[in-house]
Amino acid sequence: MATATETDAMRRAVALSGRALGDTAPNPVVGCVILDAEGVRVGEGWHQRAGGPHAEVHALFAAGERARGGTALVTLEPCNHTGRTGPCAQALIEAGIARVVYAVADPNPSASGGAATLRAAGVDVEGGLLRAEAEAVNIAWLTSVRLGRPYVRWKYAATLDGRIAAADGTSRWISSADSRADVHRLRAESDAVVVGSGTLRADDPHLAVRGIDGVTQPLRVVVDTHARTTVDARVLDDAAPTLIAVGKDADTAHLPDVDVVRLPYATGGPDTDGRRERAGLDVTALLAELHGRGVRSVLLEGGPTLAGAFVAAGAVDTVTAYLAPVLLGAGPHALADAGISTLAQALRLDVTDVARLGPDLRVTAVPAVPHPTQES
Amino acid sequence: MATATETDAMRRAVALSGRALGDTAPNPVVGCVILDAEGVRVGEGWHQRAGGPHAEVHALFAAGERARGGTALVTLEPCNHTGRTGPCAQALIEAGIARVVYAVADPNPSASGGAATLRAAGVDVEGGLLRAEAEAVNIAWLTSVRLGRPYVRWKYAATLDGRIAAADGTSRWISSADSRADVHRLRAESDAVVVGSGTLRADDPHLAVRGIDGVTQPLRVVVDTHARTTVDARVLDDAAPTLIAVGKDADTAHLPDVDVVRLPYATGGPDTDGRRERAGLDVTALLAELHGRGVRSVLLEGGPTLAGAFVAAGAVDTVTAYLAPVLLGAGPHALADAGISTLAQALRLDVTDVARLGPDLRVTAVPAVPHPTQES
Ligand SMILES: NC(=O)c1ccc[n+]([C@@H]2O[C@H](COP(=O)([O-])OP(=O)(O)OC[C@H]3O[C@@H](n4cnc5c(N)ncnc54)[C@H](OP(=O)(O)O)[C@@H]3O)[C@@H](O)[C@H]2O)c1
Ligand SMILES: NC(=O)c1ccc[n+]([C@@H]2O[C@H](COP(=O)([O-])OP(=O)(O)OC[C@H]3O[C@@H](n4cnc5c(N)ncnc54)[C@H](OP(=O)(O)O)[C@@H]3O)[C@@H](O)[C@H]2O)c1
Repeated sequence: MATATETDAMRRAVALSGRALGDTAPNPVVGCVILDAEGVRVGEGWHQRAGGPHAEVHALFAAGERARGGTALVTLEPCNHTGRTGPCAQALIEAGIARVVYAVADPNPSASGGAATLRAAGVDVEGGLLRAEAEAVNIAWLTSVRLGRPYVRWKYAATLDGRIAAADGTSRWISSADSRADVHRLRAESDAVVVGSGTLRADDPHLAVRGIDGVTQPLRVVVDTHARTTVDARVLDDAAPTLIAVGKDADTAHLPDVDVVRLPYATGGPDTDGRRERAGLDVTALLAELHGRGVRSVLLEGGPTLAGAFVAAGAVDTVTAYLAPVLLGAGPHALADAGISTLAQALRLDVTDVARLGPDLRVTAVPAVPHPTQES
Repeated sequence: MATATETDAMRRAVALSGRALGDTAPNPVVGCVILDAEGVRVGEGWHQRAGGPHAEVHALFAAGERARGGTALVTLEPCNHTGRTGPCAQALIEAGIARVVYAVADPNPSASGGAATLRAAGVDVEGGLLRAEAEAVNIAWLTSVRLGRPYVRWKYAATLDGRIAAADGTSRWISSADSRADVHRLRAESDAVVVGSGTLRADDPHLAVRGIDGVTQPLRVVVDTHARTTVDARVLDDAAPTLIAVGKDADTAHLPDVDVVRLPYATGGPDTDGRRERAGLDVTALLAELHGRGVRSVLLEGGPTLAGAFVAAGAVDTVTAYLAPVLLGAGPHALADAGISTLAQALRLDVTDVARLGPDLRVTAVPAVPHPTQES
């Protein structure tokens, strides 16, 4: 059983882990706190970026000799494999750590086994302390390991009656400055930001993070079947990396210096009858491509058509809705065709958080039942 | 200055006043607490129904002789006119009350002057104690006095993406049992419940209050230009009174025993160009008719078309949205054409309350700027 001191230290480790959200892909976020033999905190650290030292190494370095005979609190089971940095289980053993408490077991087959290695070396090992809290912070990475694709957060801003623009297309600003600042935080915590070609044409969005220091800019991704993105698109500046996903036959001659990936076409929504095809690119192939590039978390910023395709593909893991207290009664909707024609097929969610952001509401919700792919 | 004891007693009076919401039209809700000369509570009461004793009379009766030399806390300035019951100012004077503290001044020209009468009789009078709290409970009646029409609460139940039904029309149940029970509470607190002919045809709703004891049933109102309501409509049973509003030329021969009112046709929304006319009946005339029948608070239960007409007419005073955490991506919307074509014309609201009802959210909001008619 963990002591109260250990629980407090783990809470600190969980908070530390969250500092690097959006900066560690393809790695998880991890925090670590070292207690000496008397239970005094003597070191802490977190994994700051892929290729950099793991959380345990930072914390052991800070603790130095005081780690000997002490306890390490780690949000994720220490790794056992030698990646770009040495295995953490070995580092903990060499530092003379007597006890290791971790929150979440490592679900990654290539990394697991750290606990066994530690035990074999005589270290006292306990798992599961504050697991739910640690999982919540690391949910994107954990989900991506489980599903083999990036974790997808769909974000949208709409009126209380579900409109994203007025009838004449005007939409700036439906949501408040507070909500827009919050979106930059979500971008900063994501490895990639994805929009459809419709949004690109309508808004010419920039999609980089502004107003947050020291951030790792997300990969900006445009889903643009026919490569209609023009060279003057703001998304093509050098504020952040950009990827244009196009169809197999798209003519990209006008985009000589742009990172382009060719993807298969969508083969229809769940209600396809063979003849009728869903427009655009295959969402699953897009996510596989991004996963292959190390993207573990995606912020889907719309628009409604692309979001409909993601919902239809079962590829929305959480929804963040910014609802402005505004009524329009006309105009395009937050979500377009998702292949749902009757209420029994609706995507039912559980609300996990409601917050007031200036005048707006931010509603966070997750699918109420796991995706079929999660059950396998 | 009111004492802490008086403030506590006023808080109790405000709570008592709320018990009769929906039961007192065309009168306000009023609560009263009597303190004796030592500040001990010796009587309380509230106005329970139109034609019955006023709150002060109930409270004075309970206090009896102990009222002499005491203080009356009343949520609304005591009335000065002789209506169906005698004037309360006189009753307080006769009971020997030495001090009267009220929350809200009576805005009703025919009733005001109670404070002056009390002062002329040597009673110490103070106004404004817990005014905001008392106004909030009495907002429907106060608004109806100010605007000369009933206070309108528009209630709707929708998905997070603003749909009230799936593409195939299925809509039972988008919202949860908790939300539906809450709607019955709103009905119970209203003098009338209003729906359009589209909702009547689609849902054959009953509109009476179920599951709440001792309730005064609201007047059920169907806005049915062409009198297409059939005699077997559930709304025509005897669970509550019903009024069918029809156009001047409607043929109502098939509705011999039904209360019918003939109203002028709508003359177009704010964007009318003379040729294009808004369908249906004139919303302002409807509200005037209801006001004339003593209705002070209306629960507008939709549907989206009629709600659009109310929004266009500036006749929505508060919005209660039950948002189910469900995504549909298709289907009819919570609010149809309200004459708003660009964002600058949008109806901006202030959120006054957010509550979780089972899985759903209930968002309450009021127009951010007063209606033009309220400024006059
Ligand atoms: N309020 C908000 O949160 C928000 C966010 C974003 C956008 N918006 C608004 O949304 C509007 C644009 O809406 P939209 O629906 O046209 O934009 P969109 O969803 O960004 O783009 C849709 C386009 O993406 C392409 N696409 C590629 N693969 C697809 C697939 N598998 N499924 C669906 N589409 C795919 C299709 O065009 P091609 O196949 O031709 O490439 C499709 O027409 C703009 O007015 C914008 O302001 C609002
Ligand atoms: N989720 C919810 O909260 C909720 C609530 C209510 C209804 N609904 C759904 O809404 C759907 C019905 O929608 P709806 O829009 O057809 O129903 P509606 O708004 O109840 O009725 C519209 C009809 O009311 C009549 N009307 C009379 N005067 C009007 C005026 N000034 N402005 C507008 N209409 C006026 C018009 O028909 P005539 O002129 O021919 O009489 C009009 O077509 C149903 O599927 C129902 O289930 C949902």
